[in-house]
Amino acid sequence: MSEKKPRRLTAKGEATRLRIVAAAADLMYSQGVEATSVDDVIEASGTGKSQVYHYFSDKTELVEAVVRAQIERVLGEQAPFLDDLRTMRGFERWRDAIVVGVRGWRGAHGCPMGSLASEIAGRSETARENLQRGFSVWQHWFRLGLERMQDSGELRPDADAEELAVGLMAAVQGGYLLVKTTRDERSMAIALDMALDSIRVALSAAE
Amino acid sequence: MSEKKPRRLTAKGEATRLRIVAAAADLMYSQGVEATSVDDVIEASGTGKSQVYHYFSDKTELVEAVVRAQIERVLGEQAPFLDDLRTMRGFERWRDAIVVGVRGWRGAHGCPMGSLASEIAGRSETARENLQRGFSVWQHWFRLGLERMQDSGELRPDADAEELAVGLMAAVQGGYLLVKTTRDERSMAIALDMALDSIRVALSAAE
Repeated sequence: MSEKKPRRLTAKGEATRLRIVAAAADLMYSQGVEATSVDDVIEASGTGKSQVYHYFSDKTELVEAVVRAQIERVLGEQAPFLDDLRTMRGFERWRDAIVVGVRGWRGAHGCPMGSLASEIAGRSETARENLQRGFSVWQHWFRLGLERMQDSGELRPDADAEELAVGLMAAVQGGYLLVKTTRDERSMAIALDMALDSIRVALSAAE
Repeated sequence: MSEKKPRRLTAKGEATRLRIVAAAADLMYSQGVEATSVDDVIEASGTGKSQVYHYFSDKTELVEAVVRAQIERVLGEQAPFLDDLRTMRGFERWRDAIVVGVRGWRGAHGCPMGSLASEIAGRSETARENLQRGFSVWQHWFRLGLERMQDSGELRPDADAEELAVGLMAAVQGGYLLVKTTRDERSMAIALDMALDSIRVALSAAE
């Protein structure tokens, strides 16, 4: 809620600020937002208290920067698939990449956007709105891909691209939560395959 | 990780203990586990510090009790549907109840089990294992229902009841997260309908 005064940072200042946000994002991703103190961030980023408080007036402002950074991170990782999401085969390649992705660190900690949403969407309206926008962009990419499949004739024109996109997003997020809880990566594969099957049944008969 | 010494409580003692756990569960559900202090629980439960520390040696032990209580709560709410989950129509009634359920408090805070899992499964192995067992029971109920539909001939014998159950669980959990983030209850309806459609396409032709 604190007023964000746009600050003109030097290149060095911007680098320091980014280092602080990156350290905070990693800590909050692996151990949670509330469980991460500003002192933890100072230590992990190798900066000093005065530097951190130079860039962020309080933890709330730092958390807001982390939320924006994690949205950019997830959307940045998803963006290369945008070009692919125009055929069923492209959606399958995307699915494979998500399934491979949960084998590592992400499997244990879930989606960087989803885990933030689960922890803080109920308490910070600013965070909730930003995360909602993040999900909405990601979901819009699914929808665009499905509409391109309709334009090319691969997907039937009567398929509801918006609903398929919402269902796909729920499957990704549900898959992340199940993998985090069960440590069984197959949960993600099964969740995504169910969503992709819903697209498959709407493919044009000729395909 | 603290040693749990089984204590023989009087009825009054058990009532006090339950009151503390219920207050802690509500607070941790609405604001998060880490954001809830033992002092918050003392205040909300109307008990005293010495009482809380009489029943729980530390916050970790209290959190473990909350995890168990929330699993029982969710499974307790789901149990009445067990009898229904033997026909497609029964699964639809269950879906309607979940969709109605997210219109209130639960819409803003998500699944009591899922939100705990998202926040603490990465940091507490005890919590993660308990929550995994909770999900596993719930998922097993879906599976049993689908197998009963196979026994009655409503669902094709070649349908994979286990995978359908995992997909349905991912849809519920993903739906909860999307409703929490977007405040749009339709996300749950769409997510569940996609999962139910996967069951529908596996219904026997005669149905």
